[in-house]
Amino acid sequence: MKALTQTSFLFDLDGTLLDSVYDHIAAWNSALRETGIDISAWRVHRRIGMSGGLFTAALIRELGHEIDEATQQRLSTLHSQYYNERSSSVRALPGAVKLLEYLTAQEIPWAIATSSHMKTAGPVLAKIGVDPAKHVVITRDLVKYAKPDPDLFIAAANALGVKMEDSCVVGDAVWDMLASKRGHALGIGFLSGGYGETELRQAGAYRVFEDPADMLAHIDEVGGRR
Amino acid sequence: MKALTQTSFLFDLDGTLLDSVYDHIAAWNSALRETGIDISAWRVHRRIGMSGGLFTAALIRELGHEIDEATQQRLSTLHSQYYNERSSSVRALPGAVKLLEYLTAQEIPWAIATSSHMKTAGPVLAKIGVDPAKHVVITRDLVKYAKPDPDLFIAAANALGVKMEDSCVVGDAVWDMLASKRGHALGIGFLSGGYGETELRQAGAYRVFEDPADMLAHIDEVGGRR
Repeated sequence: MKALTQTSFLFDLDGTLLDSVYDHIAAWNSALRETGIDISAWRVHRRIGMSGGLFTAALIRELGHEIDEATQQRLSTLHSQYYNERSSSVRALPGAVKLLEYLTAQEIPWAIATSSHMKTAGPVLAKIGVDPAKHVVITRDLVKYAKPDPDLFIAAANALGVKMEDSCVVGDAVWDMLASKRGHALGIGFLSGGYGETELRQAGAYRVFEDPADMLAHIDEVGGRR
Repeated sequence: MKALTQTSFLFDLDGTLLDSVYDHIAAWNSALRETGIDISAWRVHRRIGMSGGLFTAALIRELGHEIDEATQQRLSTLHSQYYNERSSSVRALPGAVKLLEYLTAQEIPWAIATSSHMKTAGPVLAKIGVDPAKHVVITRDLVKYAKPDPDLFIAAANALGVKMEDSCVVGDAVWDMLASKRGHALGIGFLSGGYGETELRQAGAYRVFEDPADMLAHIDEVGGRR
């Protein structure tokens, strides 16, 4: 094995760079209620960041009966609509902009990989200074399977011209950590999406920070220098 | 020591019997934003269920500067206002009503002890079939110190005519579990407030269930028979 000193960082978006997890929970809860589906808020929380298809599949398993395709489509449309209504007030997490600026200044490759479609992720990227025309942003539109499959992160690594196994996946959800393991990357967990530290560690995180500001303060611990 | 076969149950309200934690997060977030205080949503989540005074004190420590008393008062008023706007759509958690009915039918003493004031808790008690005129409900108005101090639970045990050390404290938050330890009760944690299982165990839970329905399904494990 060749000496490996250069790490790339593949970031999740919601709950990792943006303080938007609780807005997604609220949007799903409104959508679920409007379609007459009764499910507790904490169960929605624990599924944020999953592919929307898997979210619905898990829901069906939990409810014990089918949700027809029209209702599935309506759920997805309502979630996007309610989230977009809220997203103008979504803020960057502390340190998100500075962390990306630091990596760029150090010429350390980074990219964003999100289970969201561009119609949902697009309007909020500017809040963290990210321009999809200049930076690598992989959304649900570009791959067949979203998290916890590793395809989004593999596509992000490919677009950077690096290997996923030489990268760190940075995310707030168990789904990011599972995708990280599947792609042989190292997982860095953030508490900023509302998961507990042990949940992230048990899903494979090799290091856990509070949020982007905390990671930037400890960047030397995870290979963040050129 | 006398043989001990009778346990009493002292319940937290929000996130334990009511699916209301995410509504409290939303209400606090709106209140904080309106008073110009910038704090991430997950940090608010992790403080729900604490006394409002301690919530503000922790906030001050985190922000590193004082919040004047007028702002503290305004925060509290705005939170109550925003929560009460949402609380008409708050629902009982699965099994909440059945669990309380079961305990009543078995003549097992139970009570509710919440860090909320009656003006916030009052309007939602009917959703779980609780009438403060008939059942023991201890709110913030009745004690000097709220959770994680054990006073609310001690007052609830006293009102039932039982000892806190012969009771189980049932709650979704780390603050319930800490208060339980302080009062020498056994803590039962629920995942329905969005904490991870390990967080609850590390704070002292001797048993963790998903929600009231899950506890009722396993009631024989925790002394729920006469």
